[in-house]
Amino acid sequence: MNVTIRGRVRHHRTVTFDGARNAVQLIEQRLLPHEFRIVATRDFRETAAAIHDMIVRGAPAIAATAAYGLAQGARAFRERGLRAFTRHLESVYETLQAVRPTAIDPVNAMDQVRARMQAGETVAERQALALAAAEDFAQRSVEECRRIGKHSARLIRDGARVLTHCNAGWLACVDIGTATAPMYQAQAQGRRFHVFCDETRPRCQGASLTAWELAQQGISHEVIADNAAGHLMQRGEIDLVIVGADRVLGRTGEVANKIGTYTKAVLAHRHGIPFFVAVPLSTLDWRLKSGVDIPIEERDQREVLGAWGLAQTPSSGIRTPKGAERVYVRVANPGSGARNPAFDVTPGELVRGIITPRGILDPAELWPRRREMVPRV
Amino acid sequence: MNVTIRGRVRHHRTVTFDGARNAVQLIEQRLLPHEFRIVATRDFRETAAAIHDMIVRGAPAIAATAAYGLAQGARAFRERGLRAFTRHLESVYETLQAVRPTAIDPVNAMDQVRARMQAGETVAERQALALAAAEDFAQRSVEECRRIGKHSARLIRDGARVLTHCNAGWLACVDIGTATAPMYQAQAQGRRFHVFCDETRPRCQGASLTAWELAQQGISHEVIADNAAGHLMQRGEIDLVIVGADRVLGRTGEVANKIGTYTKAVLAHRHGIPFFVAVPLSTLDWRLKSGVDIPIEERDQREVLGAWGLAQTPSSGIRTPKGAERVYVRVANPGSGARNPAFDVTPGELVRGIITPRGILDPAELWPRRREMVPRV
Repeated sequence: MNVTIRGRVRHHRTVTFDGARNAVQLIEQRLLPHEFRIVATRDFRETAAAIHDMIVRGAPAIAATAAYGLAQGARAFRERGLRAFTRHLESVYETLQAVRPTAIDPVNAMDQVRARMQAGETVAERQALALAAAEDFAQRSVEECRRIGKHSARLIRDGARVLTHCNAGWLACVDIGTATAPMYQAQAQGRRFHVFCDETRPRCQGASLTAWELAQQGISHEVIADNAAGHLMQRGEIDLVIVGADRVLGRTGEVANKIGTYTKAVLAHRHGIPFFVAVPLSTLDWRLKSGVDIPIEERDQREVLGAWGLAQTPSSGIRTPKGAERVYVRVANPGSGARNPAFDVTPGELVRGIITPRGILDPAELWPRRREMVPRV
Repeated sequence: MNVTIRGRVRHHRTVTFDGARNAVQLIEQRLLPHEFRIVATRDFRETAAAIHDMIVRGAPAIAATAAYGLAQGARAFRERGLRAFTRHLESVYETLQAVRPTAIDPVNAMDQVRARMQAGETVAERQALALAAAEDFAQRSVEECRRIGKHSARLIRDGARVLTHCNAGWLACVDIGTATAPMYQAQAQGRRFHVFCDETRPRCQGASLTAWELAQQGISHEVIADNAAGHLMQRGEIDLVIVGADRVLGRTGEVANKIGTYTKAVLAHRHGIPFFVAVPLSTLDWRLKSGVDIPIEERDQREVLGAWGLAQTPSSGIRTPKGAERVYVRVANPGSGARNPAFDVTPGELVRGIITPRGILDPAELWPRRREMVPRV
């Protein structure tokens, strides 16, 4: 999407690849909303670390990053022999897969890259195919987000008040976003609406990333504490919920997404507010039989025990502390620990529709229509 | 409760009165968990400001503070004449009532003080009665918390995992606490259990105050993001929810409490987990006919857009920044605003029991048993 920095409008994708330098280029999302910076990873280990450390996050974005990372790793192979190359590729694949276990998208993306590479007969051919496949994955991801927007923009009526959780915007994808796709499309169609952004503790991607995105695009929005959505629903101030996902089970319609999503789905269900999940095809998992089998990442306690932000004095506004973009402040009692599950699983019964590039489906329709739901590679 | 500071154990109440200096003494709760300090307000306006600025918070604690504040204001009257005194008292009352509109406790507490004062025939007599009535209110509040603990300790079985929201501990009362009363009593009876403290954004009273309290008393606990409770309930890791309240409607059983309480009640109901609300008698409102009539305080956006804490560097641990106990960091996008409703209303149908000093009641039992539910002044 377009980013305005010091008055200049430029188009950016969240993830791109620099073939000449064999580098994955990423928006450094931990610096947002306070600073917009592009960083480059020089090898697949740095790419895996960038996913792990959440320089890049969001299932479709880490999928493209993993696809590029696999190509990056393949292209860095300097020895000889297909067998050694294949072994090397396995290790690259596993490194990139292990860093964020809950999302299925990186696995699906890398599987597509690996499958395309089989057509090559030499290491060099496979290296070239790897990059072509990664580029195709990224481009398809953008197209899929565009189609998500086309299918679902009608859900956002004029004057609608939409709740979203975490960031499933263009920063979570290669471009456009999943949950934001209908918003940007509805805006393009001239409708006005308001978005409540759950701040999304502990990492506050809603407050820092979604709010930044929506402000950049001129969409009316407000940040709320995660605690406030139930109250707003109760008072009739939310018409619609749209979120993204890290994994949707094709067999059951269960949705793994950022911690707190399940809570919002339960609340929406109680209040008869439609709850939608927008996903590209890479988020669909056709293998797992139950949501309890989805690995739930438990992250560092420090995320819950404090917060990152720009130190601010009430009078002088924002100042950037020396030597650090952001400050971590300890909020919780210093002697206390925390639990930090990063994702939860929402049963399909609470989901009004899964918004896919192939249309809006009832969660129970996914499995019968599974043959339509695979990408045309 | 007892507080251990630099190895020394001392007993403290949250709110006390210094008759000689005509000062309300409060634990400065905004400094906790990083610093324990007692502050004194020199006149009723400072007392009202202390409530407004949340030096003291929690419905029963601000009730005692308001009762003492009314006595403080009465005792500061230096002119002559009962009529002038009564006018002065009205203005003190209104100042102390206006600062936190959602809680009923300060109103009930001040009404009790004012009623007792009627027995005095001179200004001096009424001034003396005001302080006696405030002291009685505070003492009764402690007794009521003790009885809450006696009636409800049995709810916490050995090995239980209890969720609580915000801080309804002794810091929210004069002593002992409401939601914490059964915990402290179950501990005294030798049972072991674990408490999950919702961090309770935006002000994080769970992470900073409840966690500190429980750590001080040696009760096993962990902080969780407000988003995580649904997931833990889904995975069978929570047996029981106990919270406090700012107002419970005797006619309907509706519960006004810290924003996010309603969400936890909805989740608990879905999972068949008993949800209890512990309150002293001053929290019961016999007048209002519907929860929609409860005024919901909307607080400063800055609470949602950032967080307060001690600046910390990963290597050196906690350091106290010069000139400030705590730092405010801006988390959200600088151009974005926020909504900040501070309370929500939970319907009685979601509440398994109201734990009162007179026993545990079904919310629907409150009205039929209203004659037992008034304090014996």
